[in-house]
Amino acid sequence: MKTLNVNLGSRSYPITIGSGILSRSQLYEPFLNGGRAFIVTNETVAPLYLDALEQALAELVEVSTCILPDGERHKILDTVSRILDQMLDVPCARDTVVFALGGGVVGDIAGFCAACYQRGIAFVQIPTTLLAQVDSSVGGKTGVNHPKGKNMIGAFHQPQAVIADIDTLQSLSDREMRAGTAEIIKYGAIRDKRFFEWLETNVSLLLERHPASVIHAVLNSCRNKSEVVAADEHETGIRAILNFGHTFGHAIEAALKYKEWLHGEAVAAGMVMAANFSNRLGLLDRKDVTRIEALIEKAGLPTAPPRSVRAQQLLEHMAVDKKTRAGVIRIIVLGGIGNASILADYDRSDLVDSIEHAFQA
Amino acid sequence: MKTLNVNLGSRSYPITIGSGILSRSQLYEPFLNGGRAFIVTNETVAPLYLDALEQALAELVEVSTCILPDGERHKILDTVSRILDQMLDVPCARDTVVFALGGGVVGDIAGFCAACYQRGIAFVQIPTTLLAQVDSSVGGKTGVNHPKGKNMIGAFHQPQAVIADIDTLQSLSDREMRAGTAEIIKYGAIRDKRFFEWLETNVSLLLERHPASVIHAVLNSCRNKSEVVAADEHETGIRAILNFGHTFGHAIEAALKYKEWLHGEAVAAGMVMAANFSNRLGLLDRKDVTRIEALIEKAGLPTAPPRSVRAQQLLEHMAVDKKTRAGVIRIIVLGGIGNASILADYDRSDLVDSIEHAFQA
Repeated sequence: MKTLNVNLGSRSYPITIGSGILSRSQLYEPFLNGGRAFIVTNETVAPLYLDALEQALAELVEVSTCILPDGERHKILDTVSRILDQMLDVPCARDTVVFALGGGVVGDIAGFCAACYQRGIAFVQIPTTLLAQVDSSVGGKTGVNHPKGKNMIGAFHQPQAVIADIDTLQSLSDREMRAGTAEIIKYGAIRDKRFFEWLETNVSLLLERHPASVIHAVLNSCRNKSEVVAADEHETGIRAILNFGHTFGHAIEAALKYKEWLHGEAVAAGMVMAANFSNRLGLLDRKDVTRIEALIEKAGLPTAPPRSVRAQQLLEHMAVDKKTRAGVIRIIVLGGIGNASILADYDRSDLVDSIEHAFQA
Repeated sequence: MKTLNVNLGSRSYPITIGSGILSRSQLYEPFLNGGRAFIVTNETVAPLYLDALEQALAELVEVSTCILPDGERHKILDTVSRILDQMLDVPCARDTVVFALGGGVVGDIAGFCAACYQRGIAFVQIPTTLLAQVDSSVGGKTGVNHPKGKNMIGAFHQPQAVIADIDTLQSLSDREMRAGTAEIIKYGAIRDKRFFEWLETNVSLLLERHPASVIHAVLNSCRNKSEVVAADEHETGIRAILNFGHTFGHAIEAALKYKEWLHGEAVAAGMVMAANFSNRLGLLDRKDVTRIEALIEKAGLPTAPPRSVRAQQLLEHMAVDKKTRAGVIRIIVLGGIGNASILADYDRSDLVDSIEHAFQA
């Protein structure tokens, strides 16, 4: 079992990573002060892990559970409203702790409910997917989608703790493992060359769920993310480097209407596009682009946008990406492996050429 | 024109109080960084002050406006959802500033929309009622009601500025002026004996809207509130003293189903009840109870709960008040005029006796 701390002053919290830890009630004890536990999970996760969590928590406090339907399409304000109704029916007092048991969707919804309930109560993230363990459960971003855009309604609300039980990854498909690995590769690419090199050697072991490799990958991902979050909690600056590959990736997802490709797959292709764009601007050596592309390919992830999408579609979707500020699309570029920066000043023609080139690859 | 600062570190903001300031665009300039202005107001306030605000802002940025129906019954999540829809239709980017033009309901809803929109954007409070100028616009409490309780869904989200134009109070009814005065008296009672004494002399001038008296009252109310908020932004401790009279007052409001009495009227009667309870426990001299009661009466406010309500109803409603923690109703008591504290340890029979006594007065 490994623990690291997200340093956010009075909002600091531990991330605990290990095997079989989900059912250890002593891990939850420090965060419960006599209040109730309110678990939010979904229909897919509940049959797998809900019993273990309920039993662990029931040793300490009274427990209520809300089981959502599975799927990103339920990540909307209506679902939040229904959860809040149930919390008031229980009724949950201010000392209730919300437990988010599931992937990124459950964590985002449950975290937002905790953020809004009586102006904010405590919550604990128990991510059960690789993507959630290495990315969405850390950093306090919570919220829901709107027909006009993803994550448009939400709050920054830090959890009391993140408890990442790597045993839960056994129930993931290989494809979901690969998609989560895209974000892991991202941390190496943007700020941790050594971790990137470790991945070049060990990515296959990670995908095979070799326990020590999974723990190493989750720990170093969370360490990198938490350092960035600690430096810029509300994404007014440097935190934007976590969006490496995401501006292109979100455009791919939007062009596919959030179907066919998983988020991590779109981010993988987006990282190759961002690396190529960095190279076009003279910032990144060709050999580093090749290394990034090779690692993504080794992880079984796409290195180019899907054939069914056109360059013009991606450009249109990039213009409305949430990361736009005052009309300028800021793009995360690399000056080397492990060295990302935020670029707002560039020729649009370079961006257009770069995107068009991605389709010719 | 007077300005005071709410000291909250990086979230500090100014409160500006004066006559005719709502239309001064230079007051808004520091808070707009090239982004759009999105005004939220209601059907009652719009005909009175919207033109002036729109013109002032239009000198600086593009302006969009959302006019809500008037009334607390619209302070619900559905209204928030509709405002967020409109903000996405515009579309508002992250650099948009939300302006809340109206009373407490508009401020609470608009502030919550700003808190949730793309995980939080800036907002400015332009309170147009006495209650909003001296209380709800300061301190960052935002949110909406739920059928099961008031303000159950919300966020702490501090504004960029509060701009209190006392000229807007000219359009209030005398009854609304009196209701706002209840919260002003509260500040004197809980932590500012000198201000309490000033009110004993000047409350009639205040109610007549004598400009210098209004400015003095609003300024000293905001100063007291902002000092408490600065000491305990998220109400984990001392901020609870701002609830003096409110535990009893909310029970009165709930028993009346939030009809007949205004919030300030219920708080006024609640303060007399809290003062009597303090006296029953031997904390407050009888002569101080009499002074509080006399000032509330001089302000034309009720000093006892309504005849239509029974003691038992108040007790039932107090049990579900949001200020309950682990089953204990914490009550704000006085040890003297200007000296409040939070009491959780008392005999329930004293509380019952005190409430029953209020009906025999």
